[in-house]
Amino acid sequence: MSKPGITRRLANFIVASRWDEIPGPVQHEAARATLNWLGCAVGGCREEAVECLWAALREFAGPPQATLLGRGARTDMLTAAAVNAISANVFDFDDTHLATVIHPTSVVASALLALAEHRRISGSEFLHALALGIESACRIGNAVGIAHYEEGGYITSTCGIFGAAAASAKVLGLDAQRMNWALGIAATSASGLRMMLGSMAKCYNLANAARSGLTAALLAENNFTSSERALEAPRGFLNVLREDADSAAVTRGLGKQWEILALAYKPYPCGVVVHPVIDACLDLRAQQAIDTAAVARVEVSVNPLAIKLCGNPAPRDSLESKLSIAHSVAVALLDGAAGVAQYLDARAVDTAVVALRAKVVLAADAAISKEQARVRVILANGTIREMFVEHARGSIQRPLSDTELETKFRGLAAAELAPAQTGQLIEQCWTLAKLPDAGAIARASVATA
Amino acid sequence: MSKPGITRRLANFIVASRWDEIPGPVQHEAARATLNWLGCAVGGCREEAVECLWAALREFAGPPQATLLGRGARTDMLTAAAVNAISANVFDFDDTHLATVIHPTSVVASALLALAEHRRISGSEFLHALALGIESACRIGNAVGIAHYEEGGYITSTCGIFGAAAASAKVLGLDAQRMNWALGIAATSASGLRMMLGSMAKCYNLANAARSGLTAALLAENNFTSSERALEAPRGFLNVLREDADSAAVTRGLGKQWEILALAYKPYPCGVVVHPVIDACLDLRAQQAIDTAAVARVEVSVNPLAIKLCGNPAPRDSLESKLSIAHSVAVALLDGAAGVAQYLDARAVDTAVVALRAKVVLAADAAISKEQARVRVILANGTIREMFVEHARGSIQRPLSDTELETKFRGLAAAELAPAQTGQLIEQCWTLAKLPDAGAIARASVATA
Repeated sequence: MSKPGITRRLANFIVASRWDEIPGPVQHEAARATLNWLGCAVGGCREEAVECLWAALREFAGPPQATLLGRGARTDMLTAAAVNAISANVFDFDDTHLATVIHPTSVVASALLALAEHRRISGSEFLHALALGIESACRIGNAVGIAHYEEGGYITSTCGIFGAAAASAKVLGLDAQRMNWALGIAATSASGLRMMLGSMAKCYNLANAARSGLTAALLAENNFTSSERALEAPRGFLNVLREDADSAAVTRGLGKQWEILALAYKPYPCGVVVHPVIDACLDLRAQQAIDTAAVARVEVSVNPLAIKLCGNPAPRDSLESKLSIAHSVAVALLDGAAGVAQYLDARAVDTAVVALRAKVVLAADAAISKEQARVRVILANGTIREMFVEHARGSIQRPLSDTELETKFRGLAAAELAPAQTGQLIEQCWTLAKLPDAGAIARASVATA
Repeated sequence: MSKPGITRRLANFIVASRWDEIPGPVQHEAARATLNWLGCAVGGCREEAVECLWAALREFAGPPQATLLGRGARTDMLTAAAVNAISANVFDFDDTHLATVIHPTSVVASALLALAEHRRISGSEFLHALALGIESACRIGNAVGIAHYEEGGYITSTCGIFGAAAASAKVLGLDAQRMNWALGIAATSASGLRMMLGSMAKCYNLANAARSGLTAALLAENNFTSSERALEAPRGFLNVLREDADSAAVTRGLGKQWEILALAYKPYPCGVVVHPVIDACLDLRAQQAIDTAAVARVEVSVNPLAIKLCGNPAPRDSLESKLSIAHSVAVALLDGAAGVAQYLDARAVDTAVVALRAKVVLAADAAISKEQARVRVILANGTIREMFVEHARGSIQRPLSDTELETKFRGLAAAELAPAQTGQLIEQCWTLAKLPDAGAIARASVATA
């Protein structure tokens, strides 16, 4: 073959990329993504899914090479990558590439930081590889499209694995041939079903992607071969996932257009399609107090996909409540907040929440985008309060500022770290490009005795 | 739900099954499958793919819980499961469930024996779980059908993972709820692309399936939850893989009809669709010597799938040669054999082999089944020698006998073990149902100093 295929062209780009050629906004966004991811991982590090995974795996784990974020235990870097990916995703509070609904950083950074602890790399090497990994995952996601997700694939893992592989292979310094193999091994290791949403196995998809992507890079480093046209071949990854995959999307504008700039950070730890509904409820409440005891009905109009994903009217626990519009409406109106505390197990079965969410009526409206929502609160006395949200907080059009990201980080880290240490960790993330040892942020995520 | 779904019914069956209720022929077939698998694993244990995998992973591996078959190194049981699955499959000499082309035992037994070494189980527990695991993998394979493989999924791993999960969960003694979760976690961990055939990543698919299936059982044991309708849900495993999946095939006749009785054992270490062609060549040669220097042309008529999978006219190395009808014809006619020695790297570039395989002409004929082949050898003097094979050796209609399996085992083990030790190991496999500790066969697979 004279002309390299898509897989090889992506590999060539990753291998050739230099940090000093990465645009400033991309460099800064990599630091923002790191800060947001690290906060989520520290905040989620004691959740039941993390405890179960670690309980199941620790007996088989290897030497202490990398840190379990927030927790402090050290284990082999493959196991650390898996556990940290679950910690980062378990609150559904991690970043989202809105075009594909991929949560790239939980997969890519979890693999990369574990590797950084074991084979020391600088902060700029970390940020560079993270940006390239996110780019790889999201571009492959663009190629298979949201349709892959709608058909049942859990796109964060099926495509995220390429990000973990690419980022890991970049810091391992693989040449183009081995980078190509790493992508191929990732392709044949990709897994994940969307239907696991609502169970622990949802975030296990990210654990698989982080671990298997990192493993793919390590195998390629050791000359483990794969098909070299893993993405574009007639029976390759893209075509197997989607008959009408837009294969060219993988390399179109590569190096000029950066998908990391299209990341959104969630202000609320629940399904992203629920966010505009929460904004509307909080905005209504901020406008004027609402006597929730007097609410007769709450009419919520959203994009059909929001109901498909989060239409559950009666969630039974934390995980299910994060994928419930009705639950989110109830807690937002009752508490004036939608943070980690509003999605604990206890809140899912709280009598006031259960009573209020029973009054929520959902309507699918294809004219409403996924970032929009209309909420009408109808009181017993007939009063109607209505709010339409054009762009959800944390969307591309209404991004969280650096300060808002810091606030979110502080809220997440509060359960593990003293405020002073949290402040130092935030500072480390903002100055990561100058740190000689990226692994320092992993160790700094653990409370000092 | 009043009526349990397919996933739960499969889980219930596995949990309730008792060894003393398993039909005698099924019990014996489990021992045959074990013998065949163990020989392949010992024979393949020094292959390059095994070396590369072990070189990449050993730095991250855990405590010495299980044996690398043939090699003797001990590592954590998850890593052992992965390495042994590659050893067992790397020669393409493992068993085949012909209806689906799944190679179930390499995945299931590799997970199970590693587990057996770490958490001691008896030989009958091993054989029982192996039979149930093979049953699960092949029945799920029947549901998605050969079409899934033809469309690009590597069915041995995508479906084999359920076998590893089910077998592991059985010996862990999981209840029906946890067995159900184990199958669900397996569903969301399933991976593998058929296009990796011809590269090391092909057998890495089995490593992933063995390791991830075993992990699924361990997670479920630790109360890690999954969707409970992982197979049959509208966006569940079966429907995501195949729009027209025959979901009922998973449980139809369960406990009455056993898929393990439909396993075929390969007499030749290459793609199974090549076997009838080799039979024809060997039969022609046995009938009367062929002067290969005088061969003008060899016309081979086979099922179209055989050409699709193994049409490569000019393989460059061992891996590619195993998927080449032309190469197989050449070595069979030249050597009168098609064993491990005929598929080494050196043979793929041997000048006599290259010269003879250039004379092979393939013709696709849909009227010829995958187990059949017609070979016409046309000599320079115009003589035509022709052979039609109705059923390949090792097919269901023409199964290898126990003695032929022993002969195959001896050939594979010869590179690692002295004949006396090989004999003892064969005896251990035949009497496995009475052994108090199944793990003994793993340790006995290593040469005594």
